[in-house]
Amino acid sequence: MEDIKLSEKLNVANIAIQNYLTNSLKSFGSGNIVDGMRYALLGGKGLRGFLVMESAALMGVTKANAISAAAAVEALHTYSLVHDDLPCMDDDDLRRGIPTIHKKWDEATAVLVGDALQTFAFELLSQRECSDDPNIRINLISSLARAVGAQGMVLGQAQDIEAESSSHPLGLDDISELQRNKTGALIEWSAVAGAILACEDPKELREYSQALGLAFQIVDDILDVEGDSNIVGKAVGKDNDAGKATFVSLLGLAPAKLRAQALADEACNALEPFGDRALTLKKLAQFVVSREK
Amino acid sequence: MEDIKLSEKLNVANIAIQNYLTNSLKSFGSGNIVDGMRYALLGGKGLRGFLVMESAALMGVTKANAISAAAAVEALHTYSLVHDDLPCMDDDDLRRGIPTIHKKWDEATAVLVGDALQTFAFELLSQRECSDDPNIRINLISSLARAVGAQGMVLGQAQDIEAESSSHPLGLDDISELQRNKTGALIEWSAVAGAILACEDPKELREYSQALGLAFQIVDDILDVEGDSNIVGKAVGKDNDAGKATFVSLLGLAPAKLRAQALADEACNALEPFGDRALTLKKLAQFVVSREK
Repeated sequence: MEDIKLSEKLNVANIAIQNYLTNSLKSFGSGNIVDGMRYALLGGKGLRGFLVMESAALMGVTKANAISAAAAVEALHTYSLVHDDLPCMDDDDLRRGIPTIHKKWDEATAVLVGDALQTFAFELLSQRECSDDPNIRINLISSLARAVGAQGMVLGQAQDIEAESSSHPLGLDDISELQRNKTGALIEWSAVAGAILACEDPKELREYSQALGLAFQIVDDILDVEGDSNIVGKAVGKDNDAGKATFVSLLGLAPAKLRAQALADEACNALEPFGDRALTLKKLAQFVVSREK
Repeated sequence: MEDIKLSEKLNVANIAIQNYLTNSLKSFGSGNIVDGMRYALLGGKGLRGFLVMESAALMGVTKANAISAAAAVEALHTYSLVHDDLPCMDDDDLRRGIPTIHKKWDEATAVLVGDALQTFAFELLSQRECSDDPNIRINLISSLARAVGAQGMVLGQAQDIEAESSSHPLGLDDISELQRNKTGALIEWSAVAGAILACEDPKELREYSQALGLAFQIVDDILDVEGDSNIVGKAVGKDNDAGKATFVSLLGLAPAKLRAQALADEACNALEPFGDRALTLKKLAQFVVSREK
């Protein structure tokens, strides 16, 4: 019952974020690029945007004041998916259950749609609608740039590609660092963005977000082994086929599940000081480890 | 003699911008991505960065206060070159006289280096070093995002690709719109950035920048016909080989040269109200139409 409520809450937030993105793109007119941006933004789970809105709620920031940052992180995340799916990267035909941009259009369009989505994310954060306070907007922009650039998400993707062609197999520490960059940094930003919007910096949210980011990635690895591609919305079994070191290959399936659960519990414990006010974020941590896609 | 002085001034500014970029990347460590960023940033003319610094000087902003925005525009411009050179786009082997990123590394690295350079540009603009005033930083970021996203530079690149495969040949108005997006928007931003840094918005600089941006592109088309690839630093004759409509194919070579010169004069006239204070920017407009690379 509780979980149904959480997934409903996630859906409601996701629809609000999608509507916000659609409205923000209205003035962009039509053409391959903006059509591709709209197409790519469709059908995401909205997990990162939800994290922004819920961490904001915990810090006393209203949904109306958090939705712009939530939309920005979804645009940024979508850019990374569009580029990661390219033939020269992960070469995926399917994303979110529909053909990837380079399959539906072509590679050039996919590169440009990803480029424009990254720009769009920074544009959303720079607008007054995001926050009346220019200092808050600047803090969101500079922290997001650090999280996703050559010291964060892009570095993680490069490390991931390098690992595939390396004869030196990665250990648990390497994988943890790689994934903290590739996936964790943006999830952490999302969970901390609410605090930035409130001009706060509680260590509890940082601890929560770090444990959550790692749990999320371990579950991704588990879904690559156990998931149903129709539910996950993308190809599964790819890591195993590629002989890639993952949390599952290094730990084993059952211990990986235990580790993900322990991290979710750790994330919840970090938020204890907030009591019931953090109930949704705690449920979200449990949802992340029980998700099927 | 005057022209030598201008190119010396441009060189001095370019070295300062390159040093600034190198220093800013120091904390990024090493690895394929940051090595690729450094490599791609090498050897640019620094024209856009110089425009930022000279428009800033005209508005009474010191070089020290303009260099961060100048570095940002060079990073942004370099990202666009790295992606435009990809096999799925213009498929160029040579840029700035050296192998393109996807030739020296591979396509995945080129996509990621471009991505990280875009992020880096926004990061530079978000830092206090760029301006003490967060409102100024926000204005630089939001105007840059508008100039280079799905309504600006990326749109122009998409229009350019579409034109190549279209059976409907472009006319002069189409080419002008395409180039204003693809090249003009970033040149215009550079020439207006100095005013943003000074919290001013003089129409003279906007007029100058628009004429300059168009002149710049016409000269690019002329160099594709008349240029020496060893001097230009990239392949020439590609547009003609592809049967692509350009200012030269539509106007003819001699009229295109006259048009570029008329635009340079127009740019200079726009700055008349500033008298000799605008001398460098005026010389720059003349330099743009007489450049050999």
